[in-house]
Amino acid sequence: MKELFGSPGKKSGLILRTGQCVFAAASIGVMTSASGFSTTTAFCYLIASMGLQVLWSFGLLCLDIHALRFNRDLHTNIIVSLFVVGDWVTSTLSLAAASSSAGVMVLFTRDTNICMVDTNLSCDLFQISIAFAFASWFLLAISSYVMFWLVASI
Amino acid sequence: MKELFGSPGKKSGLILRTGQCVFAAASIGVMTSASGFSTTTAFCYLIASMGLQVLWSFGLLCLDIHALRFNRDLHTNIIVSLFVVGDWVTSTLSLAAASSSAGVMVLFTRDTNICMVDTNLSCDLFQISIAFAFASWFLLAISSYVMFWLVASI
Repeated sequence: MKELFGSPGKKSGLILRTGQCVFAAASIGVMTSASGFSTTTAFCYLIASMGLQVLWSFGLLCLDIHALRFNRDLHTNIIVSLFVVGDWVTSTLSLAAASSSAGVMVLFTRDTNICMVDTNLSCDLFQISIAFAFASWFLLAISSYVMFWLVASI
Repeated sequence: MKELFGSPGKKSGLILRTGQCVFAAASIGVMTSASGFSTTTAFCYLIASMGLQVLWSFGLLCLDIHALRFNRDLHTNIIVSLFVVGDWVTSTLSLAAASSSAGVMVLFTRDTNICMVDTNLSCDLFQISIAFAFASWFLLAISSYVMFWLVASI
């Protein structure tokens, strides 16, 4: 099996997983600290989806640390196939969640004046949270491509 | 190069491309026939994204017909690499567009009562259009995976 940037059990893979975890956790943190998020389903879905991504990325982060510490090889068919399915599911859900929240945010700020009228909504925090979610999705997408490439080139 | 379901120049590929084209065109048709869609950026973005998908899928559909009719082999590195990039870009844009519209739609129907209050909005048609967009994205996602698998297994 090829050795690629971001593949499991490598330092680049560890950096990617850490980035995914940090951005997803930041997205949840900022969104939950914003007032009025619970009135919009898309924002609640963003939190749920980012929560799943934190769990998934943190799990793989621990596996990477274990592999690096004890010099284990994670490039077996079963492990990489499992990673590829999980990565694709979480990345699709994350993109869907970030996009739906972004769609709602554009409606709030550009199509209507809800953000200006309803001062109870922390629109700036919503936008920061969505930006973090997109950053997290982007890093996860890179991981997914690498995993898919690894499993396809077996 | 492997011969897979949905690969270029095969009947299954032709069926997938036709499905993508038909669903994307149906999504545009239904959305443009709905009154009040232009007030929401997400719905306009859906039309733009589905328009791009129709152009892309129709181009590949014509290529597939040409290959089937004249018995040409489309499984060369350059052609499949070009397909894989185009497929991934359009599928990411389509999922983002469908999700953002779905997020806005949930806001209109569940979080608020905008659909009940504003009778000028054709909420049923919006929902049908979004469903078509998701169907089109799903077929495009299958094509993208097949293409990526083909290019990775060269």
